[in-house]
Amino acid sequence: MTTCPVELTANLIRCPSVTPDEGGALVLLADLLGQAGFECTRVDRNGTPNLFARWGAKGAEKSFGFNGHTDVVPVGDVADWTYDPFGAQIDGPNMYGRGACDMKSGVAAFAAAAVDFVQDKQPDGAIILTITGDEEGPARDGTVALLDWMDANGERMSDCLVGEPTCPNEMGEMIKIGRRGSLTAKFTIIGQQGHVAYPHRARTPMAPMVRLMDRLASHTLDTGTDHFDPSTLQITTIDTGNAATNVIPNQVKSTINIRFNDAHTGDSLIAWLRAEADKVAAEFNVEVQMTTNISGDSFVTEPGAFSRMIVSAVQAVTGKTPEMSTSGGTSDARFVKNHCPVVECGLVGTSMHQVDEYVVVEQIHQLKEIYTRILTDYFA
Amino acid sequence: MTTCPVELTANLIRCPSVTPDEGGALVLLADLLGQAGFECTRVDRNGTPNLFARWGAKGAEKSFGFNGHTDVVPVGDVADWTYDPFGAQIDGPNMYGRGACDMKSGVAAFAAAAVDFVQDKQPDGAIILTITGDEEGPARDGTVALLDWMDANGERMSDCLVGEPTCPNEMGEMIKIGRRGSLTAKFTIIGQQGHVAYPHRARTPMAPMVRLMDRLASHTLDTGTDHFDPSTLQITTIDTGNAATNVIPNQVKSTINIRFNDAHTGDSLIAWLRAEADKVAAEFNVEVQMTTNISGDSFVTEPGAFSRMIVSAVQAVTGKTPEMSTSGGTSDARFVKNHCPVVECGLVGTSMHQVDEYVVVEQIHQLKEIYTRILTDYFA
Repeated sequence: MTTCPVELTANLIRCPSVTPDEGGALVLLADLLGQAGFECTRVDRNGTPNLFARWGAKGAEKSFGFNGHTDVVPVGDVADWTYDPFGAQIDGPNMYGRGACDMKSGVAAFAAAAVDFVQDKQPDGAIILTITGDEEGPARDGTVALLDWMDANGERMSDCLVGEPTCPNEMGEMIKIGRRGSLTAKFTIIGQQGHVAYPHRARTPMAPMVRLMDRLASHTLDTGTDHFDPSTLQITTIDTGNAATNVIPNQVKSTINIRFNDAHTGDSLIAWLRAEADKVAAEFNVEVQMTTNISGDSFVTEPGAFSRMIVSAVQAVTGKTPEMSTSGGTSDARFVKNHCPVVECGLVGTSMHQVDEYVVVEQIHQLKEIYTRILTDYFA
Repeated sequence: MTTCPVELTANLIRCPSVTPDEGGALVLLADLLGQAGFECTRVDRNGTPNLFARWGAKGAEKSFGFNGHTDVVPVGDVADWTYDPFGAQIDGPNMYGRGACDMKSGVAAFAAAAVDFVQDKQPDGAIILTITGDEEGPARDGTVALLDWMDANGERMSDCLVGEPTCPNEMGEMIKIGRRGSLTAKFTIIGQQGHVAYPHRARTPMAPMVRLMDRLASHTLDTGTDHFDPSTLQITTIDTGNAATNVIPNQVKSTINIRFNDAHTGDSLIAWLRAEADKVAAEFNVEVQMTTNISGDSFVTEPGAFSRMIVSAVQAVTGKTPEMSTSGGTSDARFVKNHCPVVECGLVGTSMHQVDEYVVVEQIHQLKEIYTRILTDYFA
């Protein structure tokens, strides 16, 4: 039996699974996997749909995991699209649709590879697929819920591959062995309103805010580590909303985001931010409020047997040696890393989240071939 | 004949002359002054009502001027008022109403003083009243229009007293011999939008904005001059409006206001701001746009015979020696100073622009008495 990953991608694109809607995507996959002998369990939590599927014995020493998501970001204004965003139309070398690259093609490639592999090879071990319906949204009840459920039910993976797009431009050029952490901090400085002509009767929140923001933005967090680029801090917004040019406002708000490497933890950065905020509060005699949200600490799966196996599979199929990178944004790998070693390996991500999102049809076949080689090597 | 300045204040408060409405206030004054032998001319420009009134010979060597305004700021929510804002109700020692202190009482005091003085004393010279209906608004066609018209028609004042409230708390404690200048500058920094995870592909406008604002706000403009407090610079707003915590915005806007003394001119400050903006633009490779508005350069009427005459009149009536100050906001004195020496002397300003604005009734009588003494001394 040969499962066509392109046909499967098309069928998944036709499921309108915009977060948090399941859209039929997980039902379709459960049906396919169930027929191939996978034990499928829906692990929905708080309305978020999730699918757990295992072939082979529970708790097998070699339990290879695939992780991915079927939910997609909204299409925006449909009128901007050349193709039906849920039509999976093929035009020339490409298939178009929301989720074509992020990441219904990746899910289709690993599902097709897994289904064919277990039927052809009957491997000595287990293959586990964790597929969530919320990676693009708050992600509180998606992969996290699957991992919680696995812990509670004695299910485990020995290694896991996340099928997110990882190549900036060309197929095979990059896999990801870690990700930077992400921390968002929101500041509110409260002063005292007054007339600009009498600043001694007011207490401006503006001067301390620009001082604090300048100090944070100009601070060198680090110069990079073994596997990571330098951490970065960006001010994303500062807002006052004071239209009166003769009034000193009583408060101003700002938000910053830090993408950080393994020289830091979210907690160490929060302590630094709090110290800087307190310093400015004391210098200017104002109140500096701060709230923070760590959406992921940094992590890295040190290059080893698992990542080398993936690199060699990519080399064999594409002829390219992929860079082992830790660049870019966050993914559910940040949750999986608490469970087992995790590496991300997938398609070219250029059109993700964009109008007329597409995937190169031929590359879906290549990706299935890469995944099949990895499975073959893993269970050899 | 004795003209009651309290009754006149009440009648003026009952005219709903919210800028730019004349509300009957100038008609009422022209009627009173005309009956007392003043030659009255309405000098309206672009819909702004203004009144010019002269008693005595045009071009007389001693031509004493009074300047004031009858327009008032809006009342806001009438429900917040305890008293009818246009009712001029007297309750205890106070009269309540919009314009009660800023500055229908001042206009009433100088109009009453002038009317009685010319009838009692027939002074050897001229008394000129310039009263505008737009001091609280844009002030482009108010006192400026009156002065333009005077220049064009050979009218002149040898000295002028502006009847604005000048006392912070107690009657007689302060007169103003000058005012600081005011300059507003608006900045827009244009960068390039991008994802916070890839700052090298974007160009943030935020870091240069906080650097520029911190430099401006922490700069010592001067340490004060002979007659002035130090100049001050306030950031009044910074706005981005970027709700996405993972996006570097493409632009940010800010506004600052400088209140400056005679160590600077509006033009010298604009040159400094432009240089600082250019420096930051070069450091961060962004575009820094700047627009400026000088609403008045600083000015001072050096203490001399005219200001001493006013000080001694205040002393005689109130028993206090008024400070000769240059503090506070702007007034139409900034226009009059181009025409002749100008000093401001008036009531207590605590309730100006507020809900339940009021004037202490007895102080209106005192102010008329001060103005009468000044006229007496001036024409002695």
